[in-house]
Amino acid sequence: MTRTFALTIAYDGTDFAGWQVQPGQETIQGTLQSAIKKSTGHDVNVTGSGRTDAGVHALGQVASCRFANWTASPLALLKAINSRLPETVVVVSVQDAPTDFHAIRDAIGKRYRYQIQVRHQRDPFEHRYRWRLRRDVDVAAMIKAAAKVIGHRDFSSFESAGAARKTSVRHVRDCQVIVADDYRTTGHLAIEVEANGFLYNMVRNIVGTLVEVGYGKQPPEWVDHVLDRQDRTLAGQAAPPQGLFLKEVYYQPGFQPQSC
Amino acid sequence: MTRTFALTIAYDGTDFAGWQVQPGQETIQGTLQSAIKKSTGHDVNVTGSGRTDAGVHALGQVASCRFANWTASPLALLKAINSRLPETVVVVSVQDAPTDFHAIRDAIGKRYRYQIQVRHQRDPFEHRYRWRLRRDVDVAAMIKAAAKVIGHRDFSSFESAGAARKTSVRHVRDCQVIVADDYRTTGHLAIEVEANGFLYNMVRNIVGTLVEVGYGKQPPEWVDHVLDRQDRTLAGQAAPPQGLFLKEVYYQPGFQPQSC
Repeated sequence: MTRTFALTIAYDGTDFAGWQVQPGQETIQGTLQSAIKKSTGHDVNVTGSGRTDAGVHALGQVASCRFANWTASPLALLKAINSRLPETVVVVSVQDAPTDFHAIRDAIGKRYRYQIQVRHQRDPFEHRYRWRLRRDVDVAAMIKAAAKVIGHRDFSSFESAGAARKTSVRHVRDCQVIVADDYRTTGHLAIEVEANGFLYNMVRNIVGTLVEVGYGKQPPEWVDHVLDRQDRTLAGQAAPPQGLFLKEVYYQPGFQPQSC
Repeated sequence: MTRTFALTIAYDGTDFAGWQVQPGQETIQGTLQSAIKKSTGHDVNVTGSGRTDAGVHALGQVASCRFANWTASPLALLKAINSRLPETVVVVSVQDAPTDFHAIRDAIGKRYRYQIQVRHQRDPFEHRYRWRLRRDVDVAAMIKAAAKVIGHRDFSSFESAGAARKTSVRHVRDCQVIVADDYRTTGHLAIEVEANGFLYNMVRNIVGTLVEVGYGKQPPEWVDHVLDRQDRTLAGQAAPPQGLFLKEVYYQPGFQPQSC
């Protein structure tokens, strides 16, 4: 009997060449498939809700996979896979899903978190997980600019080249700048963006644009202008990968994989 | 004219074979000396306040080094060295020191921090910096046990083999269990120990012993017994290196290198 499972996965993407299997490269998908093979003997395809790029992390990536023949519990599967994974990848939960559950096709939204550290000097303990800004930023201006990203509209100004999508219209439900309680000492900021879907590099392009505003190079209203023109060359440079975390993936009512 | 500098250094020791130069291995001392050579042309010996083991980190390691001939400012030296260091090592400050300043000989005390995470499941983002305990611990019992470590006494029960010191008497000025505000969700604990000097592996042996108490295998009073007997075989196993941070080094009044 075929059983479909939903896996929730967290990983530190620093030392991986992204999610998707590539010959001769360490990838998250390849690492998971190999751990399943070693621990259960099954050759399965692990379908992620989306491909994260090299260096990008996940707190709650969701993947679906089908076993032609697995009779033990989801918990037994979780333990088996985790026993063969490196310290940098962990399966947080495994759940029985509807047989036709598909992690990409059924996703109705995602939330990303992008972590920043405003700090003149390097920090050996944060460089894997934060983009370091060497100069002070105007946080109030960034908060204003972030609010302008929210809405149902064409986001082609925030889409990096190389992707071909039917439409570049998306609904950004939330975009906020989160200032850490200890911001004055740590310089920790985060930008969280939630949408029904994302264009290629969209979060990193939004973050790069908000940082331009933070640096005072552009006023918050500039974000409206950039969006209206639908021209990628206007927006800020893409923020680097190490600050980005896929935080949560949302599904149709009726089946929601457990989050981290 | 010979000038002596005091360097304060922070590093993520995960990918290093410890502080001390060893042929064919990446070490912190070797990395610093090579960065100084590349950026200034000077061959100098960087003397650390103590050798940290493989996988051990530092927030405020202090080192001394002498330049036969350096006419620029300490800040210029700091920038030069940092320009040639990897992301995992950073010189936090460089100061002019008395000519005869010596980072080992002049040290009168140190403070270490040991980080723990009480969590059933692996955490891909903390495994480099915390010892994970898979079972709950009795934090109140650990706090009681930690207080018993404080004092001026023989600590040979907490000294790992391989070291030859004149005396195993040390003065532990402080030993405390720090419970994170968000302990209930993160499971983050830290143990900080300050003393006039440390025996080999002393902090890791103290932490291993406090965790035995936390697990309820021994009562807090057991620490007194272990110390009184001066027998290494009685104490708990040494905690693993990745939780340990050299936090601060103290010097004679008159010259104190800037801390992080």
